[in-house]
Amino acid sequence: MGFEAYELATTLWGINRSITGDGVRQTLNILKDIIPKLRIIEVPTGTKAYDWVVPREWNVSQAYILNPEGERICDLSENNLHLMGYSIPINAKMPLSELQNHLFSRPDFPDAIPYVTSYYEENWGFCLSENQRKNLADGIYEVVIESSLSDGSMTYGEIILPGYSEQEIFLSTYICHPSMANNELSGPCVLAKIVEWLSTLTDSKYTYRIIFIPETIGAIYYISQYLDIMKNKMVAGFNVTCIGDERDYSYVSTRTGNTIVDEITNHVFSKISKTHTKYDWLKRGSDERQYCAPGVDLPVATICRSKFHEFPEYHTSLDTLGDVVTPKGLSGGLELLKRCIEATTLISYPSASVLCEPQLSKRNLYPTISKGAKPQSTQMIKNILSLSDGKTSTLEMAVRLNCPIWDLRNSLDTLLEYNLIRIDI
Amino acid sequence: MGFEAYELATTLWGINRSITGDGVRQTLNILKDIIPKLRIIEVPTGTKAYDWVVPREWNVSQAYILNPEGERICDLSENNLHLMGYSIPINAKMPLSELQNHLFSRPDFPDAIPYVTSYYEENWGFCLSENQRKNLADGIYEVVIESSLSDGSMTYGEIILPGYSEQEIFLSTYICHPSMANNELSGPCVLAKIVEWLSTLTDSKYTYRIIFIPETIGAIYYISQYLDIMKNKMVAGFNVTCIGDERDYSYVSTRTGNTIVDEITNHVFSKISKTHTKYDWLKRGSDERQYCAPGVDLPVATICRSKFHEFPEYHTSLDTLGDVVTPKGLSGGLELLKRCIEATTLISYPSASVLCEPQLSKRNLYPTISKGAKPQSTQMIKNILSLSDGKTSTLEMAVRLNCPIWDLRNSLDTLLEYNLIRIDI
Amino acid sequence: MGFEAYELATTLWGINRSITGDGVRQTLNILKDIIPKLRIIEVPTGTKAYDWVVPREWNVSQAYILNPEGERICDLSENNLHLMGYSIPINAKMPLSELQNHLFSRPDFPDAIPYVTSYYEENWGFCLSENQRKNLADGIYEVVIESSLSDGSMTYGEIILPGYSEQEIFLSTYICHPSMANNELSGPCVLAKIVEWLSTLTDSKYTYRIIFIPETIGAIYYISQYLDIMKNKMVAGFNVTCIGDERDYSYVSTRTGNTIVDEITNHVFSKISKTHTKYDWLKRGSDERQYCAPGVDLPVATICRSKFHEFPEYHTSLDTLGDVVTPKGLSGGLELLKRCIEATTLISYPSASVLCEPQLSKRNLYPTISKGAKPQSTQMIKNILSLSDGKTSTLEMAVRLNCPIWDLRNSLDTLLEYNLIRIDI
Repeated sequence: MGFEAYELATTLWGINRSITGDGVRQTLNILKDIIPKLRIIEVPTGTKAYDWVVPREWNVSQAYILNPEGERICDLSENNLHLMGYSIPINAKMPLSELQNHLFSRPDFPDAIPYVTSYYEENWGFCLSENQRKNLADGIYEVVIESSLSDGSMTYGEIILPGYSEQEIFLSTYICHPSMANNELSGPCVLAKIVEWLSTLTDSKYTYRIIFIPETIGAIYYISQYLDIMKNKMVAGFNVTCIGDERDYSYVSTRTGNTIVDEITNHVFSKISKTHTKYDWLKRGSDERQYCAPGVDLPVATICRSKFHEFPEYHTSLDTLGDVVTPKGLSGGLELLKRCIEATTLISYPSASVLCEPQLSKRNLYPTISKGAKPQSTQMIKNILSLSDGKTSTLEMAVRLNCPIWDLRNSLDTLLEYNLIRIDI
Repeated sequence: MGFEAYELATTLWGINRSITGDGVRQTLNILKDIIPKLRIIEVPTGTKAYDWVVPREWNVSQAYILNPEGERICDLSENNLHLMGYSIPINAKMPLSELQNHLFSRPDFPDAIPYVTSYYEENWGFCLSENQRKNLADGIYEVVIESSLSDGSMTYGEIILPGYSEQEIFLSTYICHPSMANNELSGPCVLAKIVEWLSTLTDSKYTYRIIFIPETIGAIYYISQYLDIMKNKMVAGFNVTCIGDERDYSYVSTRTGNTIVDEITNHVFSKISKTHTKYDWLKRGSDERQYCAPGVDLPVATICRSKFHEFPEYHTSLDTLGDVVTPKGLSGGLELLKRCIEATTLISYPSASVLCEPQLSKRNLYPTISKGAKPQSTQMIKNILSLSDGKTSTLEMAVRLNCPIWDLRNSLDTLLEYNLIRIDI
Repeated sequence: MGFEAYELATTLWGINRSITGDGVRQTLNILKDIIPKLRIIEVPTGTKAYDWVVPREWNVSQAYILNPEGERICDLSENNLHLMGYSIPINAKMPLSELQNHLFSRPDFPDAIPYVTSYYEENWGFCLSENQRKNLADGIYEVVIESSLSDGSMTYGEIILPGYSEQEIFLSTYICHPSMANNELSGPCVLAKIVEWLSTLTDSKYTYRIIFIPETIGAIYYISQYLDIMKNKMVAGFNVTCIGDERDYSYVSTRTGNTIVDEITNHVFSKISKTHTKYDWLKRGSDERQYCAPGVDLPVATICRSKFHEFPEYHTSLDTLGDVVTPKGLSGGLELLKRCIEATTLISYPSASVLCEPQLSKRNLYPTISKGAKPQSTQMIKNILSLSDGKTSTLEMAVRLNCPIWDLRNSLDTLLEYNLIRIDI
């Protein structure tokens, strides 16, 4: 599915997304082609969400600078990172010295156009590479931004896939960044393919709640609407971002670091790769900031390959499809998220049905002639039975047995089939 | 007592024990000579015990093979390991190729006769060394097994030695293996000598419940009869096996690893020898499998010198008196079990009788002239007093003071005598 | 303040203190000059305190030995360590051989006069250097001790400085040793300067309970009178001793090692110096023995530079002002105690006032243009907010953020000012 996710990212690449506006709508509509059940929700400007207010909707038709020679530079239509997000409209001439106050570049990455926004204070600006900036000649520049900031709405997408339990697995990603690949197209593209896969499952244990939202304000709004439901029903949640490059896996723990999702990520990541990185809550930076905030306290971990802030191309024009995000990288991200989901669904608390060891040989689960070491499947069955006290989770068993939780699946099925364990849901 | 235990093992050596039959009865009757209070119990074939049923009783009068030359080989009367345990009766001639399906040897130990059983499926077989097997000539062999499998009973022994408390220390060993020394004659021989010693004590704090049983089915049957009593009364229990060789001490933790018996074994073994081995529950294999099973959850540890499965002679004819088990080895096993019992009896939760430090000097427990370091006994008394909060056990004190719990005995006696601590039972 | 504390120590140096008597009164009266609120309390001889009785009051006018040449040696007026504390009166002639039973010296420190007492058994003695002792000629010696042991009282000092909460910080030191500098003049001198400083504070959160007592019997008496109050009100307490030399800081944990004062000392000492020493309860030896005794269980740690018993000059005439205790050493001791007090007062359990992250930018607490790393003060504010769940103390936050708790003060004040956190008292 890595190639399909990559293809989707290519389709979404050029759209000028922000936290509101037509770029988000366009993106969600393309996702809806793949996920017909996707519900697209509009939240009006001015809607309150805890300490925040949904901002005015921002749209841009064009934006560029004319240099003293009359040439267009920093043209939005060339690269949508050139325009600072949420820039107000302007049409003005000014000398370079004044323009400089509105230019942003990264001396540490002289070829990169940085990604800059000013959502909550009126301002305008252009982003360009340090090399381009250094070559700007003195003279009078004309600045053109045809943007609008007006009452409208914030748009997000939601899918609920019902399982036979009302308990939920929660998946979240964001769709508010312009043309950057790892942060963020990898997130919605991987999640879209996962939703497609989950939709094909017929006997799902858990219900899935999946959202595609603008970062921060989207998460805060969603929590403000659904906190009680999420607190009551959520088994575990994963915030998915920066998951399409080929570098090591990483994740951000919850605030307390001791929820079920921390156990799951600790386990899955250790079994997927020895060289992953576990980031403490102090290294947070994505929507886990809201999901795990004091009083919200949802068991949500952020899972990544190269975490935001930790890879050199982060939040610049260098974060591209091809160089940073690849089909192989996305494929690994898909595998990771699938394993996290699988691990979550496999967690249970088996209880042995009989006191003392059961007689496995009469059920053909044990060699009848006793002459030394037993086959591995027999050992697994005996070990699971010996730990099935109703208080030890299958996840704890897997940790203790030093194997991935998915390696327990067959033996658990056998034991259930023979009524040797009970699992209460 | 090591020599006496060794002598007893010599007496018991040649008996053909199995999980039922006259070999067990004969063994228990010899033990009864030393321990007159030993109660010998017969449990009828067909008695249910949880998931199990007491099997038919197995007895053998003779068993051997006649080779093509008419010579007796694999003769039970030469070594009772030659016959697979629970072999059904047979008198038949067959070519070597067919016989091979019923022969067992160990290519990894070419001189050893392995120990093999088939308790719960009807079968027959002979065990021999790999070297002997390789030299068998082609031809017709005659197999003779004069055995019986018939309704009878499973036999075990039990002694209860009452103390002034109804709380119990539990000791268990098994008596179901033919001629092997460490696994298992070391267990019943050491335990018999311990019972003899315990019987001489006149002011025992705890009641002792001691059983000599067939492994697995014996333990399961005993638990099925006495689980409530054992759950209510057991302070700690020790399953004693493989305790007569001269190699390092070792023990198997309970399933949870955090019961009182785990604390006791952790402590005693660390004070007895720096080079002991602590085995996790996943390395279980003896009757602790039943005593610590989910829902049974008795605080029982298995204590050994070289643990079953972990020494090269295990379950073969190489596990002999003299080569593996020695008087010195048995003596060390006796010492170990005594220390485990002593540690258990010494555990209490002292409470200081006065607030703040008592004035030790007016009781002549402290030097009256203060001029520097105090004698060690004074330090011990002060340290025990300073930790006697009614919640800290003497075992925790010993761990904290980095000394064996038995080193606290004198000071505890002194403090009790002077009414400076109280101990609630 | 180090110089002032040193000057005070110089004033108190020559006084012949013991657990009772005019030396203690004289010392407390000098302290009262600095701390006018100091209340001086007399506890009559014979007063019971738990297992103890306040002893008779001891005073000495003169004490010396006349050697066979008629020369005065071991003269109290030269060094008050020469006389064993609580020596009974005597005027007798005896040969050297008999006198030797009453002489004390330290072969391991041949130039040092040791400090020796016999509070609770009637005896007399002289202390001298090993070198002096070795040179004593045979002959008849005359021993003169003009002391009195009579009904009187034990004297101690107490100050209560009220804060706006009734909860208390407790400070304790002792004033019962003759001329030795680190153990003990450093304690009362540092504490006197701290009291002077605390008296100038106008908005103190906590009430301070501060005592200057004779060691052991003074602490036991004080606990016997005020245990309920102290148990109800004490937030944390510090026993201050051996705090004036220039060597590393150290402290003695409470018995359990897990009280709030253990958290405070662990934190403060680690932030003050990487090379401090944490002593386990088994290394106790000062009044923490009483404050943390079973059933008393007050959260009191003993804080030192070189701990009693652990520096070579301890309890000898080598423990002098100048050589061991210096203005710089006392200054460091003062700094340490101040930081311990400050840390205690800064401990609280903030709760975030809004769910999810608040919008810091609208309060000018966050850069409005988002373009990468945030300033450190912003990070501190965001981190504190993200941990303000009402269950995490500011001390735990400081540990997690790996900075001294006092570095949180400004951000906490800002967050309180903006009503972004609540702190319940």
